[in-house]
Amino acid sequence: MVHRDRLHPTDGALGDNVATEPLNDFSRLCVHTITTKPWSIEEAARAYSAAGVAGITVWRQWLADRDVGVVGRMLRDHGLKVVSLCRGGFFPAIDAAGRQSAIDDNRRAIDEAAQLGAPLIVLVCGAVPGMPLDEARRQIADGIAAVSEQAAAAGVRLGIEPLHPMYADNRSAVNTIEQANDMCDQLDCPHVGVVVDVYHLWWDPRLRDEIGRAGRANRLFAHHVCDWRTPTEDLLNDRGLMGEGCIPLRAIRGWVEDAGFRGFIEVEIFSNRYWAADQREFLEKIKSAYLAHV
Amino acid sequence: MVHRDRLHPTDGALGDNVATEPLNDFSRLCVHTITTKPWSIEEAARAYSAAGVAGITVWRQWLADRDVGVVGRMLRDHGLKVVSLCRGGFFPAIDAAGRQSAIDDNRRAIDEAAQLGAPLIVLVCGAVPGMPLDEARRQIADGIAAVSEQAAAAGVRLGIEPLHPMYADNRSAVNTIEQANDMCDQLDCPHVGVVVDVYHLWWDPRLRDEIGRAGRANRLFAHHVCDWRTPTEDLLNDRGLMGEGCIPLRAIRGWVEDAGFRGFIEVEIFSNRYWAADQREFLEKIKSAYLAHV
Repeated sequence: MVHRDRLHPTDGALGDNVATEPLNDFSRLCVHTITTKPWSIEEAARAYSAAGVAGITVWRQWLADRDVGVVGRMLRDHGLKVVSLCRGGFFPAIDAAGRQSAIDDNRRAIDEAAQLGAPLIVLVCGAVPGMPLDEARRQIADGIAAVSEQAAAAGVRLGIEPLHPMYADNRSAVNTIEQANDMCDQLDCPHVGVVVDVYHLWWDPRLRDEIGRAGRANRLFAHHVCDWRTPTEDLLNDRGLMGEGCIPLRAIRGWVEDAGFRGFIEVEIFSNRYWAADQREFLEKIKSAYLAHV
Repeated sequence: MVHRDRLHPTDGALGDNVATEPLNDFSRLCVHTITTKPWSIEEAARAYSAAGVAGITVWRQWLADRDVGVVGRMLRDHGLKVVSLCRGGFFPAIDAAGRQSAIDDNRRAIDEAAQLGAPLIVLVCGAVPGMPLDEARRQIADGIAAVSEQAAAAGVRLGIEPLHPMYADNRSAVNTIEQANDMCDQLDCPHVGVVVDVYHLWWDPRLRDEIGRAGRANRLFAHHVCDWRTPTEDLLNDRGLMGEGCIPLRAIRGWVEDAGFRGFIEVEIFSNRYWAADQREFLEKIKSAYLAHV
């Protein structure tokens, strides 16, 4: 890792020389429950609230065996804004029964989001190893179309999260923000939009243009941050804390804000290293890294 | 892994319903020395020749401390066609001295290719963690431009190999075939073209169109095959044997051949598993997989 000051002398100014200002408080900071995986939803709520974190994105595993409406009130009682529910999607399947099962599960997710008070569900769209990607994309579009009316009626938005191409085998056949934008155009539903996660998209030469396109279409629904470590030792669970890697975080935030986004900045870090560490210390590191690097 | 017959019922017919015929001999089969990493160049030559493999791509490590011209004659004496030399590139660096050092190394690679009798050098273009990717791409184009005249004079072609986006941090800032085609347009040198490696490119929705574009420009210089395993356990050294994964190999070969390519099909597999196995048995598996899946 080359020292960042040397290679990002104008962080946030890539391409247009207008520097994006650092963030100076935590009013837009949201943390995903999976980022602090060892904590229960109650532990996370207490700790985030005590640390001054403003928002929480809840992964569905944290709602298992709980009254979802009660959890939503508990989070609000801690002063936390529920930003989104992770995750819906996984629409493609090898037969009609599998596709129907996925649609049913997404309908349950919409109900959960409504009960929780989450305005957005993040969609990891799905893929089946060996299924042609264009077929998977058709099934994804069909699946979203099948549930979009229910989502709209519930006041819940659906955010297509394009996933890094290294997950095209079994997690998502939507691997660029351009594909997500194209799919939104095709679906033409104001409740269906795009999630910009830097981990998945930072390498894409079209990223800036497609963020602008999403903004113009009023479909830029969420912004997730972490970092890309060198070397990355695990395809899934070796994400870096912001500043530990090579992603031009401030530049991308600048593009997202130029596109009109003023919502939460969500810290989503899957990391065996950090999950094994003291979670309170990790949360403090997240806050420092958020101010220094995002 | 879903059974392939179910999801690729018309392998090679994606999109146009014209089936690509299976390969029925080994006259276009080339193996990379790194695929059988435990073997020296002499062992590889004997084994490939005995197995009826027609071509060999030599990685530069196999030439260390050897007379390159002698190695080239030895390979030809075994009836092997030298397909390419791997690898040049790695042009970006944080200072001018580093960039000059990269250029010098690529000049040595051109000399080696000429001595070896390799008509092509595969370029892994390079990236520096933290350097903005657009800056890295400028340095790559400058580096190729600096050596292209020497390559042309030596009768050695340079093939830009776009690398999977998961290598954008430290191996290559050229991550799609569209970017490679754009760079070739910019350089406008008939000795500079594109290498299509399925492992890096299979997920790209623009792949077919950009393969066609490369063919029309007479710059489709090489075709590498392997497979993408689910799960992939290592970012570098867990490539699959053809048929073990989800890449639509026959469809992509069809696109490459539709674009006019009739050269060698090169098996390039980095695999800790296979490197630990008996290499003669592995070579037989490669031959079977080549006929069955490519």
